[in-house]
Amino acid sequence: MKPSVGIIMGSDSDLSVMSEAAKILDKFEISYELTIVSAHRTPDRMYDYAKAAHDRGIKVIIAGAGGAAHLPGMTAALTSIPVIGVPIKTSTLSGVDSLYSICQMPPGIPVATVAINGAQNAGILAAQIIGAFDEAIYDRVNAFKSELKETVEKKAENLEDIKFSAYLKNMNK
Amino acid sequence: MKPSVGIIMGSDSDLSVMSEAAKILDKFEISYELTIVSAHRTPDRMYDYAKAAHDRGIKVIIAGAGGAAHLPGMTAALTSIPVIGVPIKTSTLSGVDSLYSICQMPPGIPVATVAINGAQNAGILAAQIIGAFDEAIYDRVNAFKSELKETVEKKAENLEDIKFSAYLKNMNK
Amino acid sequence: MKPSVGIIMGSDSDLSVMSEAAKILDKFEISYELTIVSAHRTPDRMYDYAKAAHDRGIKVIIAGAGGAAHLPGMTAALTSIPVIGVPIKTSTLSGVDSLYSICQMPPGIPVATVAINGAQNAGILAAQIIGAFDEAIYDRVNAFKSELKETVEKKAENLEDIKFSAYLKNMNK
Amino acid sequence: MKPSVGIIMGSDSDLSVMSEAAKILDKFEISYELTIVSAHRTPDRMYDYAKAAHDRGIKVIIAGAGGAAHLPGMTAALTSIPVIGVPIKTSTLSGVDSLYSICQMPPGIPVATVAINGAQNAGILAAQIIGAFDEAIYDRVNAFKSELKETVEKKAENLEDIKFSAYLKNMNK
Amino acid sequence: MKPSVGIIMGSDSDLSVMSEAAKILDKFEISYELTIVSAHRTPDRMYDYAKAAHDRGIKVIIAGAGGAAHLPGMTAALTSIPVIGVPIKTSTLSGVDSLYSICQMPPGIPVATVAINGAQNAGILAAQIIGAFDEAIYDRVNAFKSELKETVEKKAENLEDIKFSAYLKNMNK
Amino acid sequence: MKPSVGIIMGSDSDLSVMSEAAKILDKFEISYELTIVSAHRTPDRMYDYAKAAHDRGIKVIIAGAGGAAHLPGMTAALTSIPVIGVPIKTSTLSGVDSLYSICQMPPGIPVATVAINGAQNAGILAAQIIGAFDEAIYDRVNAFKSELKETVEKKAENLEDIKFSAYLKNMNK
Amino acid sequence: MKPSVGIIMGSDSDLSVMSEAAKILDKFEISYELTIVSAHRTPDRMYDYAKAAHDRGIKVIIAGAGGAAHLPGMTAALTSIPVIGVPIKTSTLSGVDSLYSICQMPPGIPVATVAINGAQNAGILAAQIIGAFDEAIYDRVNAFKSELKETVEKKAENLEDIKFSAYLKNMNK
Amino acid sequence: MKPSVGIIMGSDSDLSVMSEAAKILDKFEISYELTIVSAHRTPDRMYDYAKAAHDRGIKVIIAGAGGAAHLPGMTAALTSIPVIGVPIKTSTLSGVDSLYSICQMPPGIPVATVAINGAQNAGILAAQIIGAFDEAIYDRVNAFKSELKETVEKKAENLEDIKFSAYLKNMNK
Repeated sequence: MKPSVGIIMGSDSDLSVMSEAAKILDKFEISYELTIVSAHRTPDRMYDYAKAAHDRGIKVIIAGAGGAAHLPGMTAALTSIPVIGVPIKTSTLSGVDSLYSICQMPPGIPVATVAINGAQNAGILAAQIIGAFDEAIYDRVNAFKSELKETVEKKAENLEDIKFSAYLKNMNK
Repeated sequence: MKPSVGIIMGSDSDLSVMSEAAKILDKFEISYELTIVSAHRTPDRMYDYAKAAHDRGIKVIIAGAGGAAHLPGMTAALTSIPVIGVPIKTSTLSGVDSLYSICQMPPGIPVATVAINGAQNAGILAAQIIGAFDEAIYDRVNAFKSELKETVEKKAENLEDIKFSAYLKNMNK
Repeated sequence: MKPSVGIIMGSDSDLSVMSEAAKILDKFEISYELTIVSAHRTPDRMYDYAKAAHDRGIKVIIAGAGGAAHLPGMTAALTSIPVIGVPIKTSTLSGVDSLYSICQMPPGIPVATVAINGAQNAGILAAQIIGAFDEAIYDRVNAFKSELKETVEKKAENLEDIKFSAYLKNMNK
Repeated sequence: MKPSVGIIMGSDSDLSVMSEAAKILDKFEISYELTIVSAHRTPDRMYDYAKAAHDRGIKVIIAGAGGAAHLPGMTAALTSIPVIGVPIKTSTLSGVDSLYSICQMPPGIPVATVAINGAQNAGILAAQIIGAFDEAIYDRVNAFKSELKETVEKKAENLEDIKFSAYLKNMNK
Repeated sequence: MKPSVGIIMGSDSDLSVMSEAAKILDKFEISYELTIVSAHRTPDRMYDYAKAAHDRGIKVIIAGAGGAAHLPGMTAALTSIPVIGVPIKTSTLSGVDSLYSICQMPPGIPVATVAINGAQNAGILAAQIIGAFDEAIYDRVNAFKSELKETVEKKAENLEDIKFSAYLKNMNK
Repeated sequence: MKPSVGIIMGSDSDLSVMSEAAKILDKFEISYELTIVSAHRTPDRMYDYAKAAHDRGIKVIIAGAGGAAHLPGMTAALTSIPVIGVPIKTSTLSGVDSLYSICQMPPGIPVATVAINGAQNAGILAAQIIGAFDEAIYDRVNAFKSELKETVEKKAENLEDIKFSAYLKNMNK
Repeated sequence: MKPSVGIIMGSDSDLSVMSEAAKILDKFEISYELTIVSAHRTPDRMYDYAKAAHDRGIKVIIAGAGGAAHLPGMTAALTSIPVIGVPIKTSTLSGVDSLYSICQMPPGIPVATVAINGAQNAGILAAQIIGAFDEAIYDRVNAFKSELKETVEKKAENLEDIKFSAYLKNMNK
Repeated sequence: MKPSVGIIMGSDSDLSVMSEAAKILDKFEISYELTIVSAHRTPDRMYDYAKAAHDRGIKVIIAGAGGAAHLPGMTAALTSIPVIGVPIKTSTLSGVDSLYSICQMPPGIPVATVAINGAQNAGILAAQIIGAFDEAIYDRVNAFKSELKETVEKKAENLEDIKFSAYLKNMNK
């Protein structure tokens, strides 16, 4: 099946974070591809990837990068399909550098930025974008949100039933 | 014509910024509605707006807010259509408070955050989201990016032709 | 006994911090309830909780949340009883995001914000609010502050009596 | 009438901000006193003020200060009635210094911190604290919030009726 | 004369800052070219410019950009000649966003970052780089630094001679 | 009279701030000298100044600088008399850069840092240091603090006597 | 022997940091006392301590505190002897809160602020202050700085003699 | 062989970071020297080192320092050869203090600042500076960048071939 979402990241050190985007797309049964594209080490690869994406049927690109994180913004410069940026947490500046590098784009070239390390949310946002025109996907996102609600409600019930100290003990088991 | 995009903001003091989203959607000939919805002063209005949006045919919501900016995130909590957040610059913290309040959403509920005061980019992103499934809109975004390119190229040519001091003088005229 | 204080938090991962509020209220013999209410995952539950609180006799709500922490501010938007906000420390931004999201409320809807992870202080503040009209509670807060004073004075005496290196060794035992 | 709320500030340069607290208390018909108490220039005055407040019938203290803002926290150290802190915006650090100095109190001594320059909200919070035990005041806060809601709704209606460019022009008149 | 230094900037709004680099190179009699190259609006132009620079005889590139400032880092990714980055001050984040986006480059692709708005220093640094292998240029930089020294010494002498209040009055004339 | 305090600054653009240190020393009748010493433009001058200070009878040095503010720390490295550092507010980073550059000295070489633009306080601190061994100076500092107290008390009295709106009007006259 | 320096801290959890001040004073053979004084938990004790210090012969006070760190500034408000402030690193804001709370004092009441956790430097600064009027102490500080110099020079020599990889191995032994 | 690059650092605690600069210069077969020069503990050594560097044939200096990091800027003040600054990560402020102290140099004295802990990039930048006039070195930098590209491409190929969960497992082996 042709992928609808392209997940790219600047380095394989970002994979443990970025794989959360893939997992949630799997859950929504949305096809995707996942690879490494470095803005700084493989600029030609980035150009080719971004310029070809639309013709290859990609609907949304999710791009994760850390530090001077140029991959999401440059990808957005090279295509007109929506690009979601995931700022990766860094060891020195905790990802504030990544966040500013991705979010503060100039007029004309937006990047849809999610939270630092928010790759799962990037996947959900991609699903919502596709779901804007595909009711089946929309319904899956809706169902997922209902699950979230029920999980919280069950935990709340449980916490109300037992003393909080008991709940805390159970959590640490 | 039924609006495809809902533009909402927490206060009419955000209108001079947020109207940039409307202007660019006008340019792309995408229908929209624009109104004031305050998360804190009109929470019921926000609930009703967000919950009804999908059934009313809205494809994307653009929400702008400043300070403890809860409107984009709460709207995203109440609907499954994509929500774009515009952090409004604040007089005390320059919009870093708005940015963090909008961007740092928990797993499950993404907001597509653009730059501080980046309302024009929010409009372009909405167009790109619709353009992912509507080639006519995609082509308009593409054409807009070509215009941007040509404007830069013309300015560059001009700057290369004349001394920079002359160029600066022309700018200040 | 009907609870006077409602302690709510966005996720059970906040419980180890937020339980400090409960512990100090236990010490002050102030009745409370404690549960999970997520602004983003259970917005309807939050609406119902906040809107019913006053009629159920709740005098003060303590709300803890992290990241784009909307629970305290939204609760404050939905009730007119005082809301105390506890910014939870986050792994990426250390709770500065939580602090700004809770503290920087717009004119009209205040949240009484305490320190990052300051749940014990939230409990004391709730007691002080109740104590403003209940001398017995006021006296308990006063007594608690005297205890704090005496603990410091005893430690100071001890530190003055022995060499600081000995004191440090005792601390690390 | 004996004042229920004490409004103090570190310097008369804070008065234009802090008077917003007084104005809203006037609106709620809550009696207050307002004066200057500097933690650093009049520490004895601060001690006397804070220690006498409870016996003088003060229910809540609102304290505003900027920079190394010690007035709210020291007042809270010297009394057991609730203290609301207003971080004043500073010319160098925009009030982040004030916010941290007021909010980050150690376990045992809370300050109910509002937004930078949020003196109006400090007044509303004081009213909510009193309203927790005085239904008449509670109702006035409730009515005030309804007014806020109606103001937003009227503006929203107006904005929906006319083109946003017309609305902007009216604003700038 | 073939230019030794290429000065590029993301927008002509950066020209008033970036022209300082040109002025100091004029003073050092180092040939340069100056133009607009936008990473986001003219990505192909940036590729062509950066890839051709070495063969065209450019020794150093000075690149200025603001916000999510990708121009210096992407240029550095596309050439092996040294790239000096000038973070432009922004209206919302004062250039901290530009600084992080330019400075925090990943291993392998350095950008020589100067101070926010430090375009004159970028020009001096370019001269120092050329001066590392060209003694005439080295001597000019040296002479320039002597001038700076003498200017400070003359001002110091003047300030020591007259009362500081007189000096301040002279400055404000 | 031989000066007891040396006031130095990196540039005459710092003079309007740094002259506050001189004015307060005038008030305390403490002799001082005031001049320009740039760490970066006149490093030899700085060496000579700092190394000779003790033998010339200087008891305390006050050094003001902005941005990458090296003058206070380097002066402290070159002498063993106490050095007070004044971080000058900068146009881009508001003096946070100056503050960090002055305050975060490594073990072995302290700088007594005051607030951003806190030159008056630097003068008072110098007086307090001299006053530690000179009771006449100590008494003058004490008297100055009494004056501060009385000024606040008079303003407080005035504010308590008239309505705050009248007080504000008087301030703006 | 009557102490010349008073070392105080807000909590015994600050002792492992603050003891560095004591150790260096021991090295300089300067008498000191060391105890716990909490601005917030023992405000009366702080008043008494600060007000009595001068008459008890204390020449300098070193005060360490974290978070909303009011101890140094309040002590400075209550005495006219010089106060050195040590901002203690905090678990949430890394001591930026402590730094701002200590450093950003208003005109009239300076605190001589050292680096975050810079207690050793606080001790050295106290020695320098005493050394300004006591040549024997001045000479000891001078000698200490020579030791520092020699330590660095020896390490440098060693590093130049052996390969850096060998040096690193020796460090990790 | 006479060294072309001088690598200096403020303390041997910076060696594990700074040795990355040496390793990459080894790879490029560029001669260097490496030693410890502390701006604050050995200011005379720093003066001598910086002033002699040009005559000793040094083409570029790489200087690493942390906190109030004055070594790169002071070295740049004392020589006219290019100075590359490496801000070392600090335990309290994560290297933001180092970054500001190194980067925010005043007009006239630039430091070529790389990322926090970016010593490898400092080495590459030094090679690029030398490569601007030495084609053999230029070619080695070019070859190194090709290697980087190929490494990424191989990893990308591998990641595309196997499931990401398998790739992650291999990484953690």
